[in-house]
Amino acid sequence: MTENSTRDIEHLIDLMAKLPGLGPRSARRAVLHLIKKRGLVMAPLAQALQTVSETARECVTCGNIGTEDICDICTSPKRATGQICVVEDVADLWAMERGKAFAGRYHVLGGTLSALDAVGPDELRIPKLVSRIADEGITEVILALNATIDGQTTAHYIADQLGDVTVTSLAQGVPIGGELDYLDDGTIQAALNARKSF
Amino acid sequence: MTENSTRDIEHLIDLMAKLPGLGPRSARRAVLHLIKKRGLVMAPLAQALQTVSETARECVTCGNIGTEDICDICTSPKRATGQICVVEDVADLWAMERGKAFAGRYHVLGGTLSALDAVGPDELRIPKLVSRIADEGITEVILALNATIDGQTTAHYIADQLGDVTVTSLAQGVPIGGELDYLDDGTIQAALNARKSF
Repeated sequence: MTENSTRDIEHLIDLMAKLPGLGPRSARRAVLHLIKKRGLVMAPLAQALQTVSETARECVTCGNIGTEDICDICTSPKRATGQICVVEDVADLWAMERGKAFAGRYHVLGGTLSALDAVGPDELRIPKLVSRIADEGITEVILALNATIDGQTTAHYIADQLGDVTVTSLAQGVPIGGELDYLDDGTIQAALNARKSF
Repeated sequence: MTENSTRDIEHLIDLMAKLPGLGPRSARRAVLHLIKKRGLVMAPLAQALQTVSETARECVTCGNIGTEDICDICTSPKRATGQICVVEDVADLWAMERGKAFAGRYHVLGGTLSALDAVGPDELRIPKLVSRIADEGITEVILALNATIDGQTTAHYIADQLGDVTVTSLAQGVPIGGELDYLDDGTIQAALNARKSF
């Protein structure tokens, strides 16, 4: 922005530029686009942001984000299947829900264990997970953590903490539509080791 | 988003996904980021959007975007240098101002002439430009239009409409820091034709 453009627009661009995926240049472009369509998009967007900033909260049980103290998934009796899917982040929970493959409940850790970043079990809602297993009569814990070093370390730690309950993790292998030529060696090896009868 | 996530958050993601540079996936990521920092970023962003959506308007003289009927540049007596720089879009005006290379006033066309899109001279504030030249005692019109076919067609049309006034256009050549190997043939030819004594 320029010395001549008004403070409000400059301030808006600065705030937009802080969003992940937008830099100063694309924030300017987005703000110009919004100003050109201010009746159609900008006012509703301001209103929607205001509403969500007032109402959004973390579910006290699972850590999902919604507008109630306990989220829709935790309150729905249909989702009480005795299964809990443990994910790192709310984004992962949403990704699982988009797939519509899982009918049980979730537990959002909010990160992974990390000695470097001083993230211990208490920061990750792991005690809450342990208590939920008794409270909700859970029979299976599905670890859907990212296939990274930190994710797998966390998975092993959680498996150690859980007592008399089945602990499973997502299968590793060739993605649907994947071409062998483009896969890394680790994935091919994992897929070969976990081969199944055809 | 999922069937279970709340309407408000879903609605906000839909609106964010309409911004240029953000798709559904990055809009989700941005909204999650905002919700996690809702006190620090989200409420101020909602407020800034609301303010700008209420106050932003086009300058009736030059087409720049500001918060007054006539923008800062058009009201500043310092900018009355007798020069007008004609640009396609407000983004171009802002880019010129960031460079701090031009001390005069601007005229924003709001696009280029286009037979295909039925954009004629009246849609582009060209009559207003002609009247400004007399009203403001303009001595030089600098055409800073994009170096595209449409931009150059529009530049030629404008030059024809203007009477007894110097019309110039931006120089074409090698950009600062540019490497010849990466330049297209047209640019190299233009730079060669416009060569100057060293």
